[in-house]
Amino acid sequence: MTDQTSNDPEATTFRPQARNPRGFADKRARDLRAERAILEAVSAVYERYGFEALDTGAFEYADALGKFLPDSDRPNEGVFALQDDPDSEGKNGQWMALRYDLTAPLARFAAQNWETLPKPFRRYAFGPVWRNEKPGPGRFREFIQCDADTVGSARPEADAEIIAMAVEGLEAAGLPRGAAVLKINNRKLLNGLLTAAGVETGGQKLAVLRAVDKLDRLGVEGVRLLLGEGRLDESGAFTKGAGLVGKAVDSVVDFVQAGSGGRAATLAKIAEVIGGSAEGDEGLEELAKIDTALRSLGVADDQALFEPSIVRGLEYYTGAVFEAELLLSTTDDKGNKVSFGSIGGGGRYDDLVARFTGQTTPATGFSFGVSRLAAALRAAGREPGGAARGPVVVIAFDQAHMGDYFAVAGELRAAGIPAEVYLGTSGMRPQMKYADRRLSPAAIMLGGDEIAAGTVTIKDLDLGRELAAGVADNAAWKAERPGQQTIPRGELVAAVRKITSGDFGG
Amino acid sequence: MTDQTSNDPEATTFRPQARNPRGFADKRARDLRAERAILEAVSAVYERYGFEALDTGAFEYADALGKFLPDSDRPNEGVFALQDDPDSEGKNGQWMALRYDLTAPLARFAAQNWETLPKPFRRYAFGPVWRNEKPGPGRFREFIQCDADTVGSARPEADAEIIAMAVEGLEAAGLPRGAAVLKINNRKLLNGLLTAAGVETGGQKLAVLRAVDKLDRLGVEGVRLLLGEGRLDESGAFTKGAGLVGKAVDSVVDFVQAGSGGRAATLAKIAEVIGGSAEGDEGLEELAKIDTALRSLGVADDQALFEPSIVRGLEYYTGAVFEAELLLSTTDDKGNKVSFGSIGGGGRYDDLVARFTGQTTPATGFSFGVSRLAAALRAAGREPGGAARGPVVVIAFDQAHMGDYFAVAGELRAAGIPAEVYLGTSGMRPQMKYADRRLSPAAIMLGGDEIAAGTVTIKDLDLGRELAAGVADNAAWKAERPGQQTIPRGELVAAVRKITSGDFGG
Repeated sequence: MTDQTSNDPEATTFRPQARNPRGFADKRARDLRAERAILEAVSAVYERYGFEALDTGAFEYADALGKFLPDSDRPNEGVFALQDDPDSEGKNGQWMALRYDLTAPLARFAAQNWETLPKPFRRYAFGPVWRNEKPGPGRFREFIQCDADTVGSARPEADAEIIAMAVEGLEAAGLPRGAAVLKINNRKLLNGLLTAAGVETGGQKLAVLRAVDKLDRLGVEGVRLLLGEGRLDESGAFTKGAGLVGKAVDSVVDFVQAGSGGRAATLAKIAEVIGGSAEGDEGLEELAKIDTALRSLGVADDQALFEPSIVRGLEYYTGAVFEAELLLSTTDDKGNKVSFGSIGGGGRYDDLVARFTGQTTPATGFSFGVSRLAAALRAAGREPGGAARGPVVVIAFDQAHMGDYFAVAGELRAAGIPAEVYLGTSGMRPQMKYADRRLSPAAIMLGGDEIAAGTVTIKDLDLGRELAAGVADNAAWKAERPGQQTIPRGELVAAVRKITSGDFGG
Repeated sequence: MTDQTSNDPEATTFRPQARNPRGFADKRARDLRAERAILEAVSAVYERYGFEALDTGAFEYADALGKFLPDSDRPNEGVFALQDDPDSEGKNGQWMALRYDLTAPLARFAAQNWETLPKPFRRYAFGPVWRNEKPGPGRFREFIQCDADTVGSARPEADAEIIAMAVEGLEAAGLPRGAAVLKINNRKLLNGLLTAAGVETGGQKLAVLRAVDKLDRLGVEGVRLLLGEGRLDESGAFTKGAGLVGKAVDSVVDFVQAGSGGRAATLAKIAEVIGGSAEGDEGLEELAKIDTALRSLGVADDQALFEPSIVRGLEYYTGAVFEAELLLSTTDDKGNKVSFGSIGGGGRYDDLVARFTGQTTPATGFSFGVSRLAAALRAAGREPGGAARGPVVVIAFDQAHMGDYFAVAGELRAAGIPAEVYLGTSGMRPQMKYADRRLSPAAIMLGGDEIAAGTVTIKDLDLGRELAAGVADNAAWKAERPGQQTIPRGELVAAVRKITSGDFGG
């Protein structure tokens, strides 16, 4: 930047502060490389399973999202919404909102195009979703999701496929086997259990689901209290319970503890607890079919298991539910061990398309957060997309020789090696500083002497970094890997390739 | 879809219409494959030139976009804007707007991070931008742009690199050589010409730029009128002219006609017309340096030329301007020939970062529309990303054999061939219809006989399509390429691969 003062009149009158909106972040090369590597690997898996790509727009009409009415007091609650301009006939614009997930737009798309779609319709999608929530550290209002859904198949095998794809997708993205597990449950099991126990109201069922969901945090006794009268926590606050009594509490508690051992063992245990209710039996049969299909698809017990305590928050699930749980942990700012927990989830939702059409349409899907997976991969010691690498920098000594510099950079690029001629402030110092900031593997120097002699000088910058960090040994490299070498111009590409080795896939 | 009526209470009370918001479209697999193929090819080129990826968020604060004031009567004018919620201290939320291009967010980012960025800062970016304009046929309010910019280098070679990258990027995306040309101009030339002619006011300069911009449409005589008193069009409407007189009109007219022949020839002609003004000479010198660098970078005269009539609408350009013009034409609905025209452009804008910092920061860049390029590639007979292909479909005959079907599908997928087990309604007809709608290359049939005998039957669906279309000859294929064959199960992958040949890169 020059220190010349601008003569732009606007700049002298009003100068906005350069800052991101609250809860929005800029992503630099490393994060984008990770994101793209994950999405490429997962897309390839999903396409091999016959899922086709779909991208709906950023906006949906607010009524299609089903979150709020346009005349609500706070139309922005949870979503970013605005009222469209009046149309050409002057009719009031409709409320539009940025999508807050990829499922609601899919339901709208499927309802809109049902007649012409191949059925079942299998699509995957990825892209940003927006939530108008209070931002905080690590809590953004925009993030990338990746979803796969099958619409129009009621078969449990469709759920099994989604689970198998999720398992394979996460591993293809680089998550080592054993670093994550898919936990599977079925809403019908708990529904059947509760119906058999005489629980009929939706509110009570919801309270039971909420209690079950707290097994991890509160343990069996805590869940037992929340299923019954209620629970007093350490701070003295009382949470009203679901109001179940006697045998009903016992059977729910037995049920949520049935998940251990392989899928077959868990199924047997659930059958003992649940036995008798029609809806419960239906749920059991579905899980048995999912198990069979998973086995045919080569998904082992350590990759996907049945876990009756899995609830998944969203009310719209109607059958199988799944959650991908990371078995990795990381450390927080204070050095405490923190487990990653859920990285994604999904399940069967047979009523979502019916909001538009009035006809039940079976659907099932899985969704995960891309940045969260990238963070998990890093915690597992894998940098998705590989390490950051800057381009080879051709040092600009002399304006008169710019043509030579460009020719050298072009030669490297033609060989697939990222390269650029330095185009900033003159002088050697800023150029080397630039190459260092870019994490460039090498600098190319073409002084007057080199040009006259038909040679070129290459400086190995990685070696300089290794020496500075004490990784390389000064005496050893002098023999095998010169830090700086002057070679005939014709040997440039080969010499640079030796330094960059696998960096650029060349 | 079952024809069972939903028991979802919401669906019976309010049923929203399933439709896209005005000016927003869903993108299916074919369009997404094209878009991704283009972005992948162009990104690879840009990275080879040392440009790093950046993605800013969807929103910017409205003041950072600089389009309007928050208290304007129509805060939505041109952009999608909304007021953020109050912050934690109850302070009124600020106006935010969805980005309408990728340049304004870059200027904000560069100003915000200037101290820590490698300089010059070279970044590329792609993603959706949003314009709150009146939608129409082919006019969307959301579309994908792809930009590359260098911030912090005033050197004309930085412009030349952007031009070379644009040329190489468009060709890497699949545009045949000769299908597009980069047209280059420099604002300083016209400025110098006008200053020499005594034109000083910004308004008059703008009027001259507008007149020059109409050369294509109105011809030299039309431009001459618009440079002078004004022009009466066929409908009788009068457009007031720029008010130039005598020699000033002549020199501008001579100037805009100087663009023919190679770059060197055009430069010589411009020098004759422009000679004398300091700013004009500066512009000439910059173009000469751009020409030299382009030659070193291997960019020929048929790929990039100087064209003095290029204006580019945006007022923020301060030096070189470029426009990528397609030399292809297509036919509209009525069969008329329509030339594609501009597919992208850019130039040097030295004042944009100064809006934030008050300090002039040299910058230059190029931007193109991704869907527009995809359409152009199709018009040139190239389908970006290749033709659409559905998965191989494994026909589901019998619930009892689902395990075999899944195993076969898994085998094909492991070999890299997209495959799926049909999971929709039973019966042969819907399955074959499904495979046809998905453009599947083959269907796999495993009946009870095949399973008992350890064989598998493969139906070549492409051949069926070719026969139906009269492309293949019934007698010929019977010998060489059986439409349906039953083979040992162990030969499945090889046989399918023969049918799908290059379809899935296998």
